[in-house]
Amino acid sequence: MVGGGEGAFIGGVHRMAARLDGHWDLVAGNFQSDPVRSVAFGKALGLDEARAYPDFRTMAASEDARADRIDAVAIVTPNSTHHAIARAFLDVGIAVICDKPMTTTRKHADDLVDVVKRTGLPFILTHNYSGYPMVRQARVMIDAGELGNIRIIQAEYAQDWLATELPGNKQADWRGDPARAGPGGALGDIATHAFQLMEFVTGLKTGSLAADLSAFVPERKVDDNVNVMLRLGDARGMLWASQVATGSVNGLKLRVFGDRGGLEWAQETPETLLFTPLGGQQRILRRGGAGVSASAAHATRVPGGHPEGYLEGFAQIYSDAAELMRAYQEKRAPDPYATLAPGVGDGLRGVKFIEAAVASSENNGAWTALD
Amino acid sequence: MVGGGEGAFIGGVHRMAARLDGHWDLVAGNFQSDPVRSVAFGKALGLDEARAYPDFRTMAASEDARADRIDAVAIVTPNSTHHAIARAFLDVGIAVICDKPMTTTRKHADDLVDVVKRTGLPFILTHNYSGYPMVRQARVMIDAGELGNIRIIQAEYAQDWLATELPGNKQADWRGDPARAGPGGALGDIATHAFQLMEFVTGLKTGSLAADLSAFVPERKVDDNVNVMLRLGDARGMLWASQVATGSVNGLKLRVFGDRGGLEWAQETPETLLFTPLGGQQRILRRGGAGVSASAAHATRVPGGHPEGYLEGFAQIYSDAAELMRAYQEKRAPDPYATLAPGVGDGLRGVKFIEAAVASSENNGAWTALD
Amino acid sequence: MVGGGEGAFIGGVHRMAARLDGHWDLVAGNFQSDPVRSVAFGKALGLDEARAYPDFRTMAASEDARADRIDAVAIVTPNSTHHAIARAFLDVGIAVICDKPMTTTRKHADDLVDVVKRTGLPFILTHNYSGYPMVRQARVMIDAGELGNIRIIQAEYAQDWLATELPGNKQADWRGDPARAGPGGALGDIATHAFQLMEFVTGLKTGSLAADLSAFVPERKVDDNVNVMLRLGDARGMLWASQVATGSVNGLKLRVFGDRGGLEWAQETPETLLFTPLGGQQRILRRGGAGVSASAAHATRVPGGHPEGYLEGFAQIYSDAAELMRAYQEKRAPDPYATLAPGVGDGLRGVKFIEAAVASSENNGAWTALD
Amino acid sequence: MVGGGEGAFIGGVHRMAARLDGHWDLVAGNFQSDPVRSVAFGKALGLDEARAYPDFRTMAASEDARADRIDAVAIVTPNSTHHAIARAFLDVGIAVICDKPMTTTRKHADDLVDVVKRTGLPFILTHNYSGYPMVRQARVMIDAGELGNIRIIQAEYAQDWLATELPGNKQADWRGDPARAGPGGALGDIATHAFQLMEFVTGLKTGSLAADLSAFVPERKVDDNVNVMLRLGDARGMLWASQVATGSVNGLKLRVFGDRGGLEWAQETPETLLFTPLGGQQRILRRGGAGVSASAAHATRVPGGHPEGYLEGFAQIYSDAAELMRAYQEKRAPDPYATLAPGVGDGLRGVKFIEAAVASSENNGAWTALD
Repeated sequence: MVGGGEGAFIGGVHRMAARLDGHWDLVAGNFQSDPVRSVAFGKALGLDEARAYPDFRTMAASEDARADRIDAVAIVTPNSTHHAIARAFLDVGIAVICDKPMTTTRKHADDLVDVVKRTGLPFILTHNYSGYPMVRQARVMIDAGELGNIRIIQAEYAQDWLATELPGNKQADWRGDPARAGPGGALGDIATHAFQLMEFVTGLKTGSLAADLSAFVPERKVDDNVNVMLRLGDARGMLWASQVATGSVNGLKLRVFGDRGGLEWAQETPETLLFTPLGGQQRILRRGGAGVSASAAHATRVPGGHPEGYLEGFAQIYSDAAELMRAYQEKRAPDPYATLAPGVGDGLRGVKFIEAAVASSENNGAWTALD
Repeated sequence: MVGGGEGAFIGGVHRMAARLDGHWDLVAGNFQSDPVRSVAFGKALGLDEARAYPDFRTMAASEDARADRIDAVAIVTPNSTHHAIARAFLDVGIAVICDKPMTTTRKHADDLVDVVKRTGLPFILTHNYSGYPMVRQARVMIDAGELGNIRIIQAEYAQDWLATELPGNKQADWRGDPARAGPGGALGDIATHAFQLMEFVTGLKTGSLAADLSAFVPERKVDDNVNVMLRLGDARGMLWASQVATGSVNGLKLRVFGDRGGLEWAQETPETLLFTPLGGQQRILRRGGAGVSASAAHATRVPGGHPEGYLEGFAQIYSDAAELMRAYQEKRAPDPYATLAPGVGDGLRGVKFIEAAVASSENNGAWTALD
Repeated sequence: MVGGGEGAFIGGVHRMAARLDGHWDLVAGNFQSDPVRSVAFGKALGLDEARAYPDFRTMAASEDARADRIDAVAIVTPNSTHHAIARAFLDVGIAVICDKPMTTTRKHADDLVDVVKRTGLPFILTHNYSGYPMVRQARVMIDAGELGNIRIIQAEYAQDWLATELPGNKQADWRGDPARAGPGGALGDIATHAFQLMEFVTGLKTGSLAADLSAFVPERKVDDNVNVMLRLGDARGMLWASQVATGSVNGLKLRVFGDRGGLEWAQETPETLLFTPLGGQQRILRRGGAGVSASAAHATRVPGGHPEGYLEGFAQIYSDAAELMRAYQEKRAPDPYATLAPGVGDGLRGVKFIEAAVASSENNGAWTALD
Repeated sequence: MVGGGEGAFIGGVHRMAARLDGHWDLVAGNFQSDPVRSVAFGKALGLDEARAYPDFRTMAASEDARADRIDAVAIVTPNSTHHAIARAFLDVGIAVICDKPMTTTRKHADDLVDVVKRTGLPFILTHNYSGYPMVRQARVMIDAGELGNIRIIQAEYAQDWLATELPGNKQADWRGDPARAGPGGALGDIATHAFQLMEFVTGLKTGSLAADLSAFVPERKVDDNVNVMLRLGDARGMLWASQVATGSVNGLKLRVFGDRGGLEWAQETPETLLFTPLGGQQRILRRGGAGVSASAAHATRVPGGHPEGYLEGFAQIYSDAAELMRAYQEKRAPDPYATLAPGVGDGLRGVKFIEAAVASSENNGAWTALD
């Protein structure tokens, strides 16, 4: 693991998610930019001292030299550092599990796509919400035509933790600094999740978008509210992401409507999917319940009614990553369900989305293509 | 009443709403364009034969000549006829209760504003959703500053009854005909409700908007899906209205977020309002419950927990209209709560909204001012 | 109308409910026990002075003598007076619409059953919750075998308005006085509603019950919390009713489980019915929606998604009563759907339920038969 | 671990729960009654072959002899075997984490209480639902008097997976066999959870109960539906548990009402707690949200809005067990929050509850004391 030291939120999440299904052990890491504290943190986690590294380059080189080197590195650092760290490990043939957005520039994103294509190494991007079973169920249903031709997509991701300035908050600090977060605030941090989910579930690609970005909190240097209209072929979409929507917690929600049916899923109640066939009764599809696909079952641990949640969805990405890793090592095709784990392609789409939204907003909401 | 004959939906609603609180009696009407059927329909409703009129001009003239003439006329006809009918009655000094959108052209809307201003006659526009107690509660709270400065507004109105062509359906028929419905489909029929609610509740005025209108059903001549981004001073909004959102019934919903709090209201669960003060616990405010304002209590009939709904909200507009009527007749100021009933000003705003949205969409989503 | 004067809650509800569908006009009444105030109240309601009566016996006699006498009387007085008033009108051939519980003694209940059987006069008991369309839908589904053999019934009715003493509250006052309310507090006031709903929806009859009644508020002379276990043939039930369940408003809820399916309905969200066929997906049945029966459609006014509520459900009882009245007058069979309005038989069941529950509770919860 | 081999559900849950927070490693086990398959299963889990045991007595003896012996054993076998296995390990000084119900007889339960009292060894009973943060929040609020004097408790636990016979289902098989499950079916399997939760949250003790047990499925030898009324001092309760409530999944729910407030928690939506102070607005308390206690925060991993669920609640019991274990080993007082983990006392209460319910039901619902 690179990143995820003191005061980090997502590092601990990665560690629990990796542990839950028993496929991964944490054996090495560079947890903080301060070398001394990084080593101390690693030792506190119980790592072998030799593998608690002062910096990521040392880690990549040292691990590369070991017989028992790590299978993969998890990168959980601020966005602007993802590219360099990923390259350091990919270049020595170590697979990567990387936080999103993948990079802060299009050039870096293209570069990672190239390296991954060239090496064939597993590269997993932790768009963790696509690990939820009922998200995968939605994807299966749309792919099977149960919604018919998709007409409308409504995606949203509302939080409020940045509704005020948070001086001294480490999480808020780097996210509000364009040098570390990249050009997007809420845009990169959460809108990319909603965007990925939208394309992941529907299989459609966004052709162009019109965006209106705002920064409501005084002194904020990046956006904290994102209004976007999208065109995906014949379908039309809206995407709203906000980190200042007072009263919202982690309100990621997706609604898709086709000419044969509609469905709705919300991250805060992830166990169910609401489906309505055209002219029929609404149905509550439930993880582990009747009529749920093998793809959703693949991503489930305990029976329905025993709530799974965020860590389980995140763990699914790690378990899928483990299968992709093993298949790579064993030179065989992976379990098809594991290939649902987001990868470098999703990363590139996210970076394109960010760039187009920023460009559109700067151009007074002009429709802007994603490529 | 003018309109509301056989096969009409909204005519019966107006009649029940007028009756519920006991302030109005239906005594005269021209219910259909066919004179013979209009008279027959009136008689079937139990009207005095002399007041079951063959056409609205006869009705206006005849009622004007009676000592016991009607206090007000309810206009529940297709949009394009509102102006002429309203003028016919206003011109003889009869107050008007009119369906929305008020007119199909800006010129007609301006004209009604002028006449109402000149005559002082009550003119009520049945944006009935502003008759719900918890909508008025929301307005009171925002006016009192409980949300602080408004930053974000999310409005939506999703239906699916027009998800397919409905040949022979009288309701669908005129709504899909620009000659009768005006330039907007879902835009005029339901987006105007969401728009009015947004401005009614927040007290903000939309300065400009960017719209992306679609007609998904083949052969449809008006829009059936409306994506809009809005700017209301410093606040930013999104409005989605659709009549092809499969699985949606009558999903009007409003969310408002300010720097001190946020709230949420949904028409299909109208009895409650979800309020979260910044940094505090979410609260479920309930009609008839603790901490609810006099303005909301004014619009309520039975204790909380005994659900009121659509007809009660609609009846509130009629009861407020009755008070405005009486105050006009008695040359006194009306009960301030009754002045919350939407009027000719709301009608003009709605027409401006429709025109701006159509213009923006035709101009590839360019930001377009409302005036 | 007898009862429903100043300070009454239910009188106004009856008047609105009677008015909504246009089948009834209020033309006569004795609204309060004080003769002077009764007459004044009637005049304030706009009645002809001659029909604003000082007492119910005068009203029955005077109306009986009129050519345009009332079709029916609505009795909305404290429970202990229902019998005498009902007899006064039935004895002169006037139909009765009566509040529940029907009487405060078994003897009085039997007497009304006899009179109604003998005279054939319409007698409607306002168990208004059986007027909700989705309650009738539930009944249709169970009757059609969609739940299979009923195994389990869970009924509850939770309020909290009596969680403290309410000195000076007119509603609380008579309900807490055994001389006026009868032997039950929450038992007669609300548990009877839950009991009627249970039997109305399932078609089963309670054979015996075991009850544990409590009065939590100091000085209270009647129960304010009702715990009951029931046996209905092979089925088993529980019924909880409380007026001291802090945080509850008007929480009437019914769940029924059979060997082929289960369903759930709640009064505070009356528009939907949750149905799960054995081994299948849960379905949200909606008033006005797909797959809903003619019996439910009979009890509906506006399309689904436009919420109907308490007054509409109550109005349904009045509209059904109107049909029963007309059929009686026209000596024809009534519309079968109108016969769903509760009658004297439901009244007798309710009184038996109260008596059995009181007897069981006094006998330390011994299983007690209902007959 | 003893139990949890092929076809078991709960064994895998225990393993994931133990792993999630990183406090436990699985190093030894006897997973099935068949010695050969037990050893094979342990090896498949990656255990050292020497510690994949053929039977639990060998395991207890062998582990006792090791320098690196296990800190604790998890017992996840059918109920009737809990006592013997627990004794085998306690007798050699190994702590126990045991599934519920603790034993199938009162004598065995008393015996374990004695041994634990005598040895001081940690004994944790996996009433896992008391590991949920918002359950602990409820307990804190009641303990602090926020509900005032408790008047009413409504507990329920509804499932439907046993609505039909399940021939060949290993889970259903032993649960329906009194020789392995003990005298209760749904009573022991799930009603005990609801009972424990009721007492855990309120701090009240049930004095007596009246029960009506049923077996709806033909040929079933144990109850599958449990109706109970309870008296807890001055408070009154109802408890319903069913495994044949068609359409229910894992519906454990608790409602508590006092003279100052009421609250509600449901296992299928475990992240929130609904609280209403007397006369005030309802509040949605949320894990990780405003006004939530340190006791709840102790049992939480990720921020609110990122759903935690069943495995996290279960993991909490394991993490608390780890702290109790360490404190025992270090001869210090444990973190007070860890002492909330259920223990041998909860186990005895559960066995008393089962015995009283069976006795009452056999005695036609007579009120039966718990001691």
